[in-house]
Amino acid sequence: MSEAERAVRIGLLGCGTVGGGVVQLLRANAASFAERVGAPLEIARVLVKSLAKDRVPELDRGLLTTSADELFDDPSIDVFVEVMGGVSPAQAYLERAIDRRCSVVTANKMLLALHGPELILRALRSGVDLAFEGSVGGGIPVVRVLRDACASDRIKRLTGIVNGTSNYILTAMSQTGMSFADALKDAQAKGYAEADPALDIGGHDAAHKLAILALIAFGARVPDGSIPTEGVDRVAAIDHQFAARFGFVIKHLAIARRTGDGLELRVHPTLLPRGSNLAHVDGVLNSIALEGEALGPCILTGRGAGDMPTAVSVVSDLLDVARARRVGAAGLLTRGVRIAPCPLLSLADVTTRYYLRFAVNDRPGVLARIAKALGDANVSIEQVVQERPAEGSGAPVQVVMLTHDAVERNVQWAMGEIRQQDFLEGETQLIRVEDA
Amino acid sequence: MSEAERAVRIGLLGCGTVGGGVVQLLRANAASFAERVGAPLEIARVLVKSLAKDRVPELDRGLLTTSADELFDDPSIDVFVEVMGGVSPAQAYLERAIDRRCSVVTANKMLLALHGPELILRALRSGVDLAFEGSVGGGIPVVRVLRDACASDRIKRLTGIVNGTSNYILTAMSQTGMSFADALKDAQAKGYAEADPALDIGGHDAAHKLAILALIAFGARVPDGSIPTEGVDRVAAIDHQFAARFGFVIKHLAIARRTGDGLELRVHPTLLPRGSNLAHVDGVLNSIALEGEALGPCILTGRGAGDMPTAVSVVSDLLDVARARRVGAAGLLTRGVRIAPCPLLSLADVTTRYYLRFAVNDRPGVLARIAKALGDANVSIEQVVQERPAEGSGAPVQVVMLTHDAVERNVQWAMGEIRQQDFLEGETQLIRVEDA
Repeated sequence: MSEAERAVRIGLLGCGTVGGGVVQLLRANAASFAERVGAPLEIARVLVKSLAKDRVPELDRGLLTTSADELFDDPSIDVFVEVMGGVSPAQAYLERAIDRRCSVVTANKMLLALHGPELILRALRSGVDLAFEGSVGGGIPVVRVLRDACASDRIKRLTGIVNGTSNYILTAMSQTGMSFADALKDAQAKGYAEADPALDIGGHDAAHKLAILALIAFGARVPDGSIPTEGVDRVAAIDHQFAARFGFVIKHLAIARRTGDGLELRVHPTLLPRGSNLAHVDGVLNSIALEGEALGPCILTGRGAGDMPTAVSVVSDLLDVARARRVGAAGLLTRGVRIAPCPLLSLADVTTRYYLRFAVNDRPGVLARIAKALGDANVSIEQVVQERPAEGSGAPVQVVMLTHDAVERNVQWAMGEIRQQDFLEGETQLIRVEDA
Repeated sequence: MSEAERAVRIGLLGCGTVGGGVVQLLRANAASFAERVGAPLEIARVLVKSLAKDRVPELDRGLLTTSADELFDDPSIDVFVEVMGGVSPAQAYLERAIDRRCSVVTANKMLLALHGPELILRALRSGVDLAFEGSVGGGIPVVRVLRDACASDRIKRLTGIVNGTSNYILTAMSQTGMSFADALKDAQAKGYAEADPALDIGGHDAAHKLAILALIAFGARVPDGSIPTEGVDRVAAIDHQFAARFGFVIKHLAIARRTGDGLELRVHPTLLPRGSNLAHVDGVLNSIALEGEALGPCILTGRGAGDMPTAVSVVSDLLDVARARRVGAAGLLTRGVRIAPCPLLSLADVTTRYYLRFAVNDRPGVLARIAKALGDANVSIEQVVQERPAEGSGAPVQVVMLTHDAVERNVQWAMGEIRQQDFLEGETQLIRVEDA
């Protein structure tokens, strides 16, 4: 067999639903992939935890093994594809693959969020590729667009709806007026939220994705836990109503903004003007809006999760990596991600607008005292709505404000002052506003 | 100087506004580009028509020449970047560059639409790259996404808002109720429409872009003039009003759909449901919605035109091409576009829904005769609105219909029948409907 025809041999690490999708795509498009790569793609061996489990019918079960050594000791394997998820043992496997000078494709969000920079540097040192489109944004090709299409420009800002569960819940609350608890139950019934939804509704999943996006877009190393994170569980039905009255919708956003001083990263529910590009991204769709200095806005929308969209991303990476290897150009793609020193800014220094809501008991002078606390902190108010409940309902008065641009530190100081007042009934609410 | 440090030398063909943007990006990002490519990028020579004209200050005027031979006879040039536009002499220049085994980057829409397949095949034969992100969609990285990110999937359908002038006009008409003529004047006053807007408002610019998109997405050769094309100049203010009443907006779309029989391509104003992904893309923004078999929907939105967004696309191609050349992997990208036999379907065979409007004089039996002509052609009606004008206004009655799915040939037969009736006052209107 001539070198031109020698197959590119793949070690598949994991074969759950995404892995099954990879197997199906490789089978269904074998001829066109071979033409593109210049050689057939062949699965050499598949590492799984259980030999007994059901697999997609396209998989030759003779390739299954529970021994990682069988893959790492097989010198015929050219490329590893990791779709097992989790940090351990995936991290050790990828390091072994890279150290063997095999290029690696991974869809592992947690691993990239926690250890992306080291893995990239390791791949660069070994002269191989580490491709990870599937690790963030499911089928949305945001890694490729940031790494390659935006390589000629500088990204100023990135805002994304990157958690489908959160977006489904907010959309349902906004469109039907239902409570957070009911919207969560609805999402669980439809399979859009896990039985334990904490990672999604607490915003932590979105923070992991933002860490990966910040790595590609800005070369930033983002230590675990360093992104200020709030989840959709903080938003009440009444906040959607007031937001709508002011001309906004509430979306859960991951935000990165480059300033002269460093990089601002944050994840939280956000008021967005009804006409902005992300305001109409509803349900489980995800969307990432980039803003380049020269490019202007570029918005990518699609399925942020799901087995087949993620498998498409994994296989598109595999085609790139396999083709590069065939022509002796491994490592080319990975050079596109440049890790650079990039200080992370404190949330306290963020300047933005704020939506504030206070449930208060109805007596004279309350608004004046809230306004004074804000004024003392140099926070100026753009709009106020004070809503009295139906007579005799016993519900508190809602005082709702939109501020002008203000510094987070000052707003938090004022909120601390207000929280000590005796007129408050229940929690205060603070939701940041983005203007586009 | 070691080979590792030898610059990649660029022959720049044309230096208008996009070319000036390319020069500026190369200057502003020189260090990061050199790191990415593995060698500095250096402009060797710049072909222009006039040495006297003003250029961006970043350009060394000593590089200017009016002699193409000075570039093609310079053996130090590695890559050509064509930003002159027009078919002649750009076509001959690109052929010369390719035949010299230089990779080529172009932003030339007309050239790619008319001669894309030959140029790609020529580049493949020479083992060089032909990259053309800037030729379609301005700063939207749709070529790259189709060529690379979607390489692992099969595209079923592509719908795009790809002409900013048309979208600006339709948005203005829809939002303010103004006439087409006034919206066009407004667009011209704001610089969004050319003095001679025929290519834009007649849909021909969108048809050229669709030919390029069909080439990348489906490998289709699309002969000039073979795409059924209608422009926004056909849409009246009253159509926006009726569309809104039915829950739709009118957008000018370029549509490609793969069926078992071949490829359906068409460009025309379209009724879109208000909740669909493209319905909220307003003003001069462009947006392209892809639908992959496994990927599902993927929507790319951004600036479809403009010097700097296009320059970003050109330079991102240049980085790819230069890097590939540096490592001896030229030709790698271009292999991603696979030209394949792909019959183009006739518009007569299209099945879709239709919005039909008839201005008629008000007498009994008119609706019955319209309905009969449609029924005879096997076109069934989903909704009808019959609107009487104000008493004594002398305006005709408007009969407006939405059909169920019907075959274009049948609808056109019925429209022919109806046009022969004596109750018509003025033109009939037919606008196709897309359901998402």
